[in-house]
Amino acid sequence: MNDPVNVLILSAGTRNRIVDYFKKELGGRGMVAATDCSPLAPALYAADRSFVVPPVGSGAYLEALLAICRDCGVKCVLSLIDPEQQVLAAHRRDLLETGAVPLVSGAEEVERCMDKYAMYRFLKRHGFSVVRHYVDRETFYRDEEAGVVRYPVMVKPRRGSASLNTGRAVCREDVDLCFRLHADLMIEEFIEGREFGVDAYVDLLSRKPAAIFAKEKLRMRAGETDKSRSVRDEALFDLVGAFLGASGLVGVVDIDLLQSGGEYFITDVNPRFGGGYPHAHECGVNFVRLILNNIAGRENAGAVGEYEEDTFMMKYSEATLLKKTDLIGEAP
Amino acid sequence: MNDPVNVLILSAGTRNRIVDYFKKELGGRGMVAATDCSPLAPALYAADRSFVVPPVGSGAYLEALLAICRDCGVKCVLSLIDPEQQVLAAHRRDLLETGAVPLVSGAEEVERCMDKYAMYRFLKRHGFSVVRHYVDRETFYRDEEAGVVRYPVMVKPRRGSASLNTGRAVCREDVDLCFRLHADLMIEEFIEGREFGVDAYVDLLSRKPAAIFAKEKLRMRAGETDKSRSVRDEALFDLVGAFLGASGLVGVVDIDLLQSGGEYFITDVNPRFGGGYPHAHECGVNFVRLILNNIAGRENAGAVGEYEEDTFMMKYSEATLLKKTDLIGEAP
Repeated sequence: MNDPVNVLILSAGTRNRIVDYFKKELGGRGMVAATDCSPLAPALYAADRSFVVPPVGSGAYLEALLAICRDCGVKCVLSLIDPEQQVLAAHRRDLLETGAVPLVSGAEEVERCMDKYAMYRFLKRHGFSVVRHYVDRETFYRDEEAGVVRYPVMVKPRRGSASLNTGRAVCREDVDLCFRLHADLMIEEFIEGREFGVDAYVDLLSRKPAAIFAKEKLRMRAGETDKSRSVRDEALFDLVGAFLGASGLVGVVDIDLLQSGGEYFITDVNPRFGGGYPHAHECGVNFVRLILNNIAGRENAGAVGEYEEDTFMMKYSEATLLKKTDLIGEAP
Repeated sequence: MNDPVNVLILSAGTRNRIVDYFKKELGGRGMVAATDCSPLAPALYAADRSFVVPPVGSGAYLEALLAICRDCGVKCVLSLIDPEQQVLAAHRRDLLETGAVPLVSGAEEVERCMDKYAMYRFLKRHGFSVVRHYVDRETFYRDEEAGVVRYPVMVKPRRGSASLNTGRAVCREDVDLCFRLHADLMIEEFIEGREFGVDAYVDLLSRKPAAIFAKEKLRMRAGETDKSRSVRDEALFDLVGAFLGASGLVGVVDIDLLQSGGEYFITDVNPRFGGGYPHAHECGVNFVRLILNNIAGRENAGAVGEYEEDTFMMKYSEATLLKKTDLIGEAP
């Protein structure tokens, strides 16, 4: 008999859907374990086994993670949040020694996704259309005076996520005010256009795109895609394919794009399941199956754009209710 | 045989849970119809019958609403959003003529909930502890200089919802900047404390509280309670009971409070189902049953605080996927 294919989902948070997708795809061939640093993460209660762990980056974190991998016989470990990707990439060897394959890109590739300015320079160097970024205010002011870039611009953290601390500046005073209030900011050209999101899976074995799903974002909520429409556009698929090839990223990649003047601009890259992934999955673009194939040593064939166009995804809230005594770990 | 008890839920939006609660409680004794101005409102697809209607306040809106009430044999109509409460209150007679009972307070009582400054004056007049509000900047500046109120303060729309356009001001320049950018603002004293939410149902027949449920808000997301803990506190129940008695509100009331220095402050009142209502319902505090009793002409006995303390509610996202051809009304 084969060993069970146990999967560990880190920082599961409110992503009950991802836990459910793994449980369904495994169909009893293995269990799904989940972690979070809060006992009030509802996805913990959707998993087969759950653990409240120290926060990512804290001293006790890594040992707790490795212990769970060993104790649960984990075959594949992945995280649903950005900061944890770097930890998985940095400790790939430790994880492999426990028998768990980390579903993560290399440390350098992950770091480039975390640093929006580094990603901007990477895109520019590789000839992709870019939205201008500045970390140096004086360079921006010179470009603005020369008419290279115009107000309004967005001022945001170089390493931010979920639109936190993002402001719109219409003049030099606004920009200066933002920089007085926060550190490590960058200035981003504001381009009006339609927003798109791409869910891609790069095969761990062939290192080629095994699936690409694209959607137009119709509405955002708290930085997450709330409503979207599936789209198929060869120009978009080609751009994403070229980017993935250049990027060196593997596994699940979530890409934000802007379409303006008939051109696509890559605006953000997250090396993990995006919040809008359920749209792809419900359309039959099943990354979970691709992951489990890879973990079993099977390569996936490429399947770019194999889904129906003009399907609409709309999110709504469900609620989990628990008694204090049923919480994992200590109640807050 | 009795007539079916058909319920119409207006602006159902993403509140699939509310639709489900009504369907379950009716148990086939009637159907649940739902409206929204967008075909991408997922709750439309959870209801028995659904309609995409003109936006609230548009010319064609009222006739569409009355036609649905007549065509569907609606016995009870309620809305899940603020602006529609005023429309229901203003057209109570028209609705009753179709046979539909609007679950709404009087026009004056509703208007007071929409205007945060009017609610502040009302609370103050009735002797409740208040967080200071100012619509006149000069009065605020005088009070600030006299040490009656201190920075930081919140600057927000007098008639806003979901924390939109709300800013924090630490000095006069900040306040002035906000007032230059937006109209109809007010200044609100900032009090640090724990946030609570109360779901109350005032019986339509006895006009007395038939149920009060209280929760501490542990985490908000996009202006909605994302995680909460049920609490039972006689002081809080007494305060809410006194407020409800003075307010003249009936039906479902959602109240936000702040606890600071051992005192509760009412900070916002919404005359409708709040986003955190599932916590109350899952704890057995079933407003839907109370509503259906009232519609059937039965008075509800008072049941304040009849639920378990220290239960935890945590929300997560579900997704509805639809083909373009399955959308109600025109696709966007």
